[in-house]
Amino acid sequence: MKPNVLSKMGQRTAGPPISWLIQSALTRPKLISLAAGFTDNASLPVELSRKLLNDILRSPKTGQPALQYGVTAGETNLRTLTAKHLQKLDGVAATPSSQTGRRGGDATHSPERVIITGGSQQLLYMTLEALCDEGDIILVEDPTYFVFLSILQSRGIKTRGVKLERDGIDLVHLDKVLERLKQSGELHRVKALYLVTYFQNPTGATTSLAKKSTALKLLKKYERAAGHPLYLLEDAAYRELRFASSPSPRPSGERAGVREFEFEIKGLLTPTLSSVGGREGEDVPPTALTLPGAKERVIYAGTYSKPYATGVRVGFGILPEPLYTAVLRIKGNHDFGTANLLQQLLARALATGLYDRHVAKVQKNYARKARVMKSALAEHFPANVEIWESGGGLYFWARLPKGISAGVKSKVFQTALKNDVLYVPGEFCYADDPSRAKPDNEMRISFGSASADNIHKGIARLGKVLRKFV
Amino acid sequence: MKPNVLSKMGQRTAGPPISWLIQSALTRPKLISLAAGFTDNASLPVELSRKLLNDILRSPKTGQPALQYGVTAGETNLRTLTAKHLQKLDGVAATPSSQTGRRGGDATHSPERVIITGGSQQLLYMTLEALCDEGDIILVEDPTYFVFLSILQSRGIKTRGVKLERDGIDLVHLDKVLERLKQSGELHRVKALYLVTYFQNPTGATTSLAKKSTALKLLKKYERAAGHPLYLLEDAAYRELRFASSPSPRPSGERAGVREFEFEIKGLLTPTLSSVGGREGEDVPPTALTLPGAKERVIYAGTYSKPYATGVRVGFGILPEPLYTAVLRIKGNHDFGTANLLQQLLARALATGLYDRHVAKVQKNYARKARVMKSALAEHFPANVEIWESGGGLYFWARLPKGISAGVKSKVFQTALKNDVLYVPGEFCYADDPSRAKPDNEMRISFGSASADNIHKGIARLGKVLRKFV
Repeated sequence: MKPNVLSKMGQRTAGPPISWLIQSALTRPKLISLAAGFTDNASLPVELSRKLLNDILRSPKTGQPALQYGVTAGETNLRTLTAKHLQKLDGVAATPSSQTGRRGGDATHSPERVIITGGSQQLLYMTLEALCDEGDIILVEDPTYFVFLSILQSRGIKTRGVKLERDGIDLVHLDKVLERLKQSGELHRVKALYLVTYFQNPTGATTSLAKKSTALKLLKKYERAAGHPLYLLEDAAYRELRFASSPSPRPSGERAGVREFEFEIKGLLTPTLSSVGGREGEDVPPTALTLPGAKERVIYAGTYSKPYATGVRVGFGILPEPLYTAVLRIKGNHDFGTANLLQQLLARALATGLYDRHVAKVQKNYARKARVMKSALAEHFPANVEIWESGGGLYFWARLPKGISAGVKSKVFQTALKNDVLYVPGEFCYADDPSRAKPDNEMRISFGSASADNIHKGIARLGKVLRKFV
Repeated sequence: MKPNVLSKMGQRTAGPPISWLIQSALTRPKLISLAAGFTDNASLPVELSRKLLNDILRSPKTGQPALQYGVTAGETNLRTLTAKHLQKLDGVAATPSSQTGRRGGDATHSPERVIITGGSQQLLYMTLEALCDEGDIILVEDPTYFVFLSILQSRGIKTRGVKLERDGIDLVHLDKVLERLKQSGELHRVKALYLVTYFQNPTGATTSLAKKSTALKLLKKYERAAGHPLYLLEDAAYRELRFASSPSPRPSGERAGVREFEFEIKGLLTPTLSSVGGREGEDVPPTALTLPGAKERVIYAGTYSKPYATGVRVGFGILPEPLYTAVLRIKGNHDFGTANLLQQLLARALATGLYDRHVAKVQKNYARKARVMKSALAEHFPANVEIWESGGGLYFWARLPKGISAGVKSKVFQTALKNDVLYVPGEFCYADDPSRAKPDNEMRISFGSASADNIHKGIARLGKVLRKFV
């Protein structure tokens, strides 16, 4: 009997490259993991969630709806609060729905276009289900979010990588990639360009609004040849994890300290720390939803899980038709709606303003941990390692000199593991694109879950390994 | 520009047939819905959930893990508790894992084979993803759970219906269907037989263990010709919603009253109430997991959502290899694990025994509501309507005399709607099977969400409509 009872997709779906890394972490008690994209335990809203859930479950009137089925698109109050939240982040004014369609921006952010999902991951998954057949093509940043690449691989969707710069993709390269696909007659298989626009996983890069705008125009330019819309899929998962400026109007001692430190290290033989995605405390650009034509061409994936709590999986999407309806129907088949209790928890956090207050705390906390890692990198990493520093998110991106591999089979990785420190090899974050080589000299280093002390220790260990091979 | 930017699946996925029914319910304030499969609001564990969540979130030690990412397969404690829970329900003894493989039953119920999902719906969805390509065939009960049919339709999977009797599928017909598929050369496209084995949605029928056993043997018989395993996919979503017997060892007044009532109506010109799925308080058969060979061929889908709270979406599956690994990888791409907070809530409810206590209350409550509906059906429905009465679940199944349609376009349905009462037309529950006609003279009537008072009123309205047309 042949073993091929599985579907093509069942046979094709690979194990996540990172799972055995996490497994390793469990079997080595002294290992410091700078690999996992876990969030910081100490800043999780334990007491806040207890309070909010208590309020919800105090009476049958609010408690029963939270424990009952809801509608597939998500709770009306949470969809409305989500639209408002995004309007606020994007700096667009609310418009009564009777006026939508005339004013652009706000019709784009309207609650009717919001769907609540089980994390933004589920939104990405369902969007690809609704949009892509096997053999279709999605353009991605090179490098990009590796679980997104896993979905593409599993579903037999092809990828083309677009070179990533510190303020987003290389637009000349995007044009070239699209032109090449047009020449080869493959443009009709292209469906979307996927960008992780804020403090990108893995590099920390933030895409400027100008780049989003031009990318959208470039996609538009090729639509006639493609024969169908070409979407911009904006993944803003890390958007709210920007490093907060100090609440006081003047730079605090800590912040001033950072500046001095930056100045100080310039004169030394330390790694190149180049800023990507804005400076600490700097405002981030608005989303592509604010651009002309966005209502028809921008798919937005957002989440409350990362800024609030990763154990509370609530994400959301804003989608143009006909995608919105298709994704909604698919969601009906997946689970007919995200757990209501979690939706009500987030709705109450947002409505009371306690969500914003919590996020402000989280931002300060990550800013602090990023500073710890930055300082350790400057101290312990060899001078010829290039480091991308971000204004938010969970990661530093390090590039070793050409020819020195940081890949999973490399001496660097294996020696690091032996010395009880783990990172994500950058090679996992590159698409299988026959037209582009996968660099293997990069590493994603996370300060998300490790304590300040372990961040310092972990980077010291890693630095020691690198000094040996670099 | 052609509008076909969507994938084949995106284009194919239909809206759920029941969604506009639910929409109707919202626009008619006086409408009594006997359609929705919602659970009873009053019996939702509001205070219990508050207590359990308070306990979890009282300290960072238990609170932080609940608000953090977990592993994709689900929390270890919940997987262990789930395996134990099923062992208890199935009456099999726990065996140390070192002895598994020798003792049969328990290796089949082991925690390592459990995956925690976003309701059992997500398990069904991912199982079909891992198992079926477009054009593959799944055998289903005729009638069956209509959202499962929606998934099949969306994914381009074909269906063949097997006639349903009061104690499960017609085995002679199953054999005939398989033989016919063998003759037509389509057997290699068949992947599984899907059975809703307890208080089935929509009919209330419960499959006897003897029938599960023979069905499994029949599938085995055709495996050689199929060229691959043929799975039994057992959906036990309603298993724990059996109507509890009174806690007192002797029949209570209420229960005695029911018996009298049953006796009484036999002599009258009332609808035929035929029992399916056991009597109130009767034990239900164990799952197919207890049968020889189950470890390799039975896929089990279970849920805590229906018995505990539908707003807390936690389901689970037990799967044989290579399906387990494939589904686990697919789950990684969907959402890398069900929300930890909900998993910890269920784990604590199970570990403290408060889950069992809550379910016992729920069972009594549904038994009471079913009695109310039964009494109303006897009083108001015409004598020539055949009614299936169940020992659990949320539904009665009514069959009008042949030739009288209860379909969505029928006079019966439209008049019922005009008279502010809603049911699910039975036709929605039949597979698109070219070899079988879809009866349209049936209705699924739910006592799940309506109050006792509204159950009585709703059935009276519906009875009045039926007396007009039947």
